[in-house]
Amino acid sequence: MAVNLHIPKDDAVYPVPGVEIGVTEAGIRKADRRDLTVFKLSPGSTVAGVFTRNRFCAAPVLVCQEHLSAGAAIQALVINTGNANAGTGEPGLKAANETCEALAKLMALQSNQILPFSTGVILEPLPVDRIKAGLPAALKNLSANNWVSAAHGIMTTDTLPKIHSQRISMGGKTITLTGISKGAGMIRPNMATMLSYLATDAGIAQPLLNQLAREIADVSFNRITIDGDTSTNDSFIVIATGKSGLMVDSTAHPQYAELKAALAAAATDLAQKIVRDGEGATKFMTIRVEEAKSSAEALQVAYAVAHSPLVKTAFFASDPNLGRILAAIGYAGINDLDVGGVKLWLGDVLVATQGGRNPSYQETDGQRVMKEAEILVRIALGRGNTTETVYTCDFSHEYVSINADYRS
Amino acid sequence: MAVNLHIPKDDAVYPVPGVEIGVTEAGIRKADRRDLTVFKLSPGSTVAGVFTRNRFCAAPVLVCQEHLSAGAAIQALVINTGNANAGTGEPGLKAANETCEALAKLMALQSNQILPFSTGVILEPLPVDRIKAGLPAALKNLSANNWVSAAHGIMTTDTLPKIHSQRISMGGKTITLTGISKGAGMIRPNMATMLSYLATDAGIAQPLLNQLAREIADVSFNRITIDGDTSTNDSFIVIATGKSGLMVDSTAHPQYAELKAALAAAATDLAQKIVRDGEGATKFMTIRVEEAKSSAEALQVAYAVAHSPLVKTAFFASDPNLGRILAAIGYAGINDLDVGGVKLWLGDVLVATQGGRNPSYQETDGQRVMKEAEILVRIALGRGNTTETVYTCDFSHEYVSINADYRS
Repeated sequence: MAVNLHIPKDDAVYPVPGVEIGVTEAGIRKADRRDLTVFKLSPGSTVAGVFTRNRFCAAPVLVCQEHLSAGAAIQALVINTGNANAGTGEPGLKAANETCEALAKLMALQSNQILPFSTGVILEPLPVDRIKAGLPAALKNLSANNWVSAAHGIMTTDTLPKIHSQRISMGGKTITLTGISKGAGMIRPNMATMLSYLATDAGIAQPLLNQLAREIADVSFNRITIDGDTSTNDSFIVIATGKSGLMVDSTAHPQYAELKAALAAAATDLAQKIVRDGEGATKFMTIRVEEAKSSAEALQVAYAVAHSPLVKTAFFASDPNLGRILAAIGYAGINDLDVGGVKLWLGDVLVATQGGRNPSYQETDGQRVMKEAEILVRIALGRGNTTETVYTCDFSHEYVSINADYRS
Repeated sequence: MAVNLHIPKDDAVYPVPGVEIGVTEAGIRKADRRDLTVFKLSPGSTVAGVFTRNRFCAAPVLVCQEHLSAGAAIQALVINTGNANAGTGEPGLKAANETCEALAKLMALQSNQILPFSTGVILEPLPVDRIKAGLPAALKNLSANNWVSAAHGIMTTDTLPKIHSQRISMGGKTITLTGISKGAGMIRPNMATMLSYLATDAGIAQPLLNQLAREIADVSFNRITIDGDTSTNDSFIVIATGKSGLMVDSTAHPQYAELKAALAAAATDLAQKIVRDGEGATKFMTIRVEEAKSSAEALQVAYAVAHSPLVKTAFFASDPNLGRILAAIGYAGINDLDVGGVKLWLGDVLVATQGGRNPSYQETDGQRVMKEAEILVRIALGRGNTTETVYTCDFSHEYVSINADYRS
């Protein structure tokens, strides 16, 4: 059911010099599926992460934050699906640390040079023994060409793998930029996303990478929502190996702006791919709120529209029942909103103006746009100059089926 | 699909002396359905209302607020279904006023002695001529015994009428208290509800009734949610005819507390009936948050859980996938929440404690509670002494069907 989610052909997925990936079947929850992935990074790589703000954040998220803030040189990532290791208390923390220790021993590293990640069901004990038993096979599988396999290996209810890959000339060097993400449900990232790993062979100095990771998350993963549920495990990781010979060490570097724009575009593509493959998605909607007084109020309105089950089911039905969008704008929480100044467009069709229906609006025009798979909802608030954009999908029978059956 | 929604037998629906009701078919949207209702109130009645805070509030809501604040003696209500008269701008206001003028002429009243109400589709012009044409038949139908008929006459996607009726001895008098409500979708009242009318033959002085209406709405209609969508048309009206001979004119009156408790219990029952008949509902859930620092943070957590599509679909499936509740607590927005102090019970089963799963929790115990039609979710935050309760329902295939098909 994914909406226009294109998977690049194998020969258009470029390996990132300095990154090797191994994937295996560890039988964590289900048999016959790739569920354990290890990234090996070359010495000298810098790594930064942005994580969920959910207070019930998963044990591996806490361990990642600890290892990153300790300042050790990160040399490996280990990712399991099938179990989120969230809502697991002290035993969960112990399991995440044990995973790192086991991998460190096999790779001759220190435990705090490893970042652990988990995704899957919450509130169930992590089967750490199965993970430890699977690690040797994952390491044996290490290859620079395993990005597609890793994109499969981190999936849960995703129907398709999500991959972004490109090569760019920059500062006289050829830079590679390849990343993967997974999403599907419990998607309304707060300062991060579900799981996404974006690597480049540009070099980026550590303090700059920390800042970049957050800025990029804010314009990509922090602008998508599927069901308004912020996960316990959201993690976005940026890796810079430096193997291309380009080293960006400050915002004054001549290639800084170009590199940042490329990373942000890659992250936005990976984030949009999560929405395109949202649980049960049949439509991809862009909610753009213009003429707001501030970014905060623009986002307030955009998320009210993007989270409304009534709006989302109307899009599923291709029914231009657009009063539901006005209702969502009205309850978004802007208490001094003058509805007389609000305009609503569906695609290029002006639907509402001056507090009511545009006199020349024809339902057939609305119907035409609603039938498309990609729809722009444009809302002008008439209050200021700020614009914000949020990406979301519709709400279908399939969403209910998937989430009523997820564990069975 | 309504959950334990009991309709009182006809002889247990007590007329309220001083209130007559007429219902007719005006063909507003669909043929062969009661869609126009008129209430006639005896002189000397007091009336108070609480309305939606949606900024795109409907034209009739604006007219009600104007008529109530003008201080004229309200003598009639007129309610149509099939069209919300919301998102209709100036023409919508004109239509609501025209409705009042037509009824005022037929009843020999002033236009501002009438309160108009509409419910149905947003953004479509009100067919005011059909309403005006239907008024004589509604007046001809006036009777004290038409409460059940009126409960039908205000329904939209409701599957069953919602009625509360009781007689109580109070201060040596017999007081009657009868009310109706409608809901089904776009239900997350903000300072009011969808449509509800509660009448008593106790007399209540106007300033006291204004205050009571708001206080009662806050503990009843403002504690329910179906889909998190706050409607454009929410209206809760309390009518006190005084015909019983009991007159309560201040909070110091000996029967004040008893009368307020009876009105609040009636309003809570009518509000819960809206949830029981929520669109597609198969479960009735009570979300009780205890040990909060404030009412605001208790409600923040309760609504995060009550609005989570993942929590709601798990309840639909009777699947104790209870990590989803922890995730919702975690993202509710309490940034200094110590998850180690949080406890979660499902019915009488302690599911989570000390940041993780209760070591003695058995999934079979969770399963047993999940299979029931009425479920208590109890969350103790371990931060203070405040408790708040919110009522909601699950999220089923039927919700999607209803809202993908509502206009067709």
